[in-house]
Amino acid sequence: MARACAVIMAGGVGTRFWPRSREKNPKQLLEILGKGTMLQNTVKRLDSLIGLENTFIVTNRAQRAGLLKQLSGIPDENILDEPVGRNTAPCIGLAALHVRRIDPEAVMVVLPADHVIQNVPEFHRVLSVAIETAYESRSMITIGIQPTRPETGYGYIQIFDDAGEHNPFFDRGVHKVKTFAEKPNVQTAERFLASGDFLWNSGTFIWRADTILRQIEQCLPELYSELMKIDRAMDTPQYQSTVEKVYGMIRGISIDYGVMEKSDNVYVIRGDFGWSDIGSWDEVLLQSGKDASGNSFTGKIIQIDTKNSYVFSPEKVVATIGVEDLIIVNTDDALLICRKGRSQEVKEISDYLKRKQMNEYL
Amino acid sequence: MARACAVIMAGGVGTRFWPRSREKNPKQLLEILGKGTMLQNTVKRLDSLIGLENTFIVTNRAQRAGLLKQLSGIPDENILDEPVGRNTAPCIGLAALHVRRIDPEAVMVVLPADHVIQNVPEFHRVLSVAIETAYESRSMITIGIQPTRPETGYGYIQIFDDAGEHNPFFDRGVHKVKTFAEKPNVQTAERFLASGDFLWNSGTFIWRADTILRQIEQCLPELYSELMKIDRAMDTPQYQSTVEKVYGMIRGISIDYGVMEKSDNVYVIRGDFGWSDIGSWDEVLLQSGKDASGNSFTGKIIQIDTKNSYVFSPEKVVATIGVEDLIIVNTDDALLICRKGRSQEVKEISDYLKRKQMNEYL
Repeated sequence: MARACAVIMAGGVGTRFWPRSREKNPKQLLEILGKGTMLQNTVKRLDSLIGLENTFIVTNRAQRAGLLKQLSGIPDENILDEPVGRNTAPCIGLAALHVRRIDPEAVMVVLPADHVIQNVPEFHRVLSVAIETAYESRSMITIGIQPTRPETGYGYIQIFDDAGEHNPFFDRGVHKVKTFAEKPNVQTAERFLASGDFLWNSGTFIWRADTILRQIEQCLPELYSELMKIDRAMDTPQYQSTVEKVYGMIRGISIDYGVMEKSDNVYVIRGDFGWSDIGSWDEVLLQSGKDASGNSFTGKIIQIDTKNSYVFSPEKVVATIGVEDLIIVNTDDALLICRKGRSQEVKEISDYLKRKQMNEYL
Repeated sequence: MARACAVIMAGGVGTRFWPRSREKNPKQLLEILGKGTMLQNTVKRLDSLIGLENTFIVTNRAQRAGLLKQLSGIPDENILDEPVGRNTAPCIGLAALHVRRIDPEAVMVVLPADHVIQNVPEFHRVLSVAIETAYESRSMITIGIQPTRPETGYGYIQIFDDAGEHNPFFDRGVHKVKTFAEKPNVQTAERFLASGDFLWNSGTFIWRADTILRQIEQCLPELYSELMKIDRAMDTPQYQSTVEKVYGMIRGISIDYGVMEKSDNVYVIRGDFGWSDIGSWDEVLLQSGKDASGNSFTGKIIQIDTKNSYVFSPEKVVATIGVEDLIIVNTDDALLICRKGRSQEVKEISDYLKRKQMNEYL
């Protein structure tokens, strides 16, 4: 049986969750849906399968303090800081160096800190298959989610839905990847959904640490050579300064674009376990429990004739009169009022605040 | 020339302006439209006609401290406290006792503290005519506003629009009152508007102190006899305790219902000087300066595709996305979000807070 480590990528800012998410208190550190923060729930969800001692978290310096407050049981040396975010390839490369120290053959389960999964036993079953397959085959495996709607907010993966292309793992439900597709427009998304051979790209990857480092060496040799500088500095007093220097040099690139799309050793396993990346306030409203009028309220809310609305205001009393289809998020120092269906535009508010250097609200 | 005193009734709570108006900080003490609080603007508007030394303000104990902070130049003894509000008849009776001490023949201009007037010279002209007429004729005069829309939020006054019924003041633009009408429904309001002989009841009254006391004696003898107890205690150490006792005894009644509707010595003078009682947030939006999208914003407001909306948030940043026809009022501890056209229902929020004893929000 393969040894598995979890690598939770927790460095994101989640600007779509403004005004709750802030640079120092991003989405994954918030209690967005139900009990527990998204990060706490992600860690807990993996615990019985992988164990806290084998769980790594990649974060950044600004968020580290807030993150540590939320967690217990994970060894300090498993919390890895990036000086700046450089997208997923450097993040995964850095984590692979650390995982390899524990066990050169260890399988990494790489996943974002801010997703929701309803059916944990099925999630574990899928991961177990993926871990064994990645261990034996030294391939790169991703989890593709069975789509339930023509979503335009996700990337898609097209699979070979037969055993063609020399797929020895087909009987385990593991498919060869035909192609990766960017976020589609709605017509394309509808075509993808109808075709039956497109899955949502969940951003969850399973591979051996030695496999992904070899792939980075082949596809991103510059990044690999920088990572080797970090590897040589590991367990020396120069570790931190080397990481700083390297992150100052390397460019940001995603593991999908930089590695996976260039390789033919990529498999996908179909997952159907109530997954969501909770990418916007609209998705929160969708996933929240609602009253008979379609409202989801948190806080002291007084309503008259209010429908299909999300109100979050833990501190201040809120009164709504005659409104519908609104998303209202009321924090200590900022208020968002957004028409339902338009919460993707919350990102533009963050962009505006950045442009105007209103840093206290970022 | 008659001596005139102003009596500004400033004891109201203005629950329709929740969450800005509170029991200790009511509408008249707020800066609702433009510069200056409504009370400050009311005092200032009368100053050149009447003078601060002849200006009385009737308030209550809860509001007195906040009120004094806003005013200067009015003699302390002209700020009259009511222990509890008992509607306008006792308030006006109490003020009349004090005005009579200054000058038994003085004319009182009685008016609310929370109205707005655009054309002050014309307002002064109308008041001057009313003051002289009230002085000479010993009648009760009210100001009726030329209606501009079928408003259902005001009472109406029907006038004789000829010199009939023995009206010796007709050539001054002073009409005899035919009848008072309560707030109408919209059909009735449209009929009133079309008829041409209905005016809005502005709640502004002009009469001699001795006239109104004699009228109270005739129409409300019980109130009169209680007022006489206060009159006898005036300038004695028993004044405050007598006022307390009297206000504990008397019932609340309006001067319109209790006196004016029962008398045939009532005249109305037509006013057309841009009057509004600013009775609701909708009226504030109506009267506010607006940008090209019909918005009126106070505070740090970041908007995407927002139309015909009023946002007041002096402290906290507010972002709006894709909303229209909203009234948003964001204070330190409470938030109102109300569909345009429904701000009359804000009163129901106050009622709810009272019922639930959420006193910190009242």
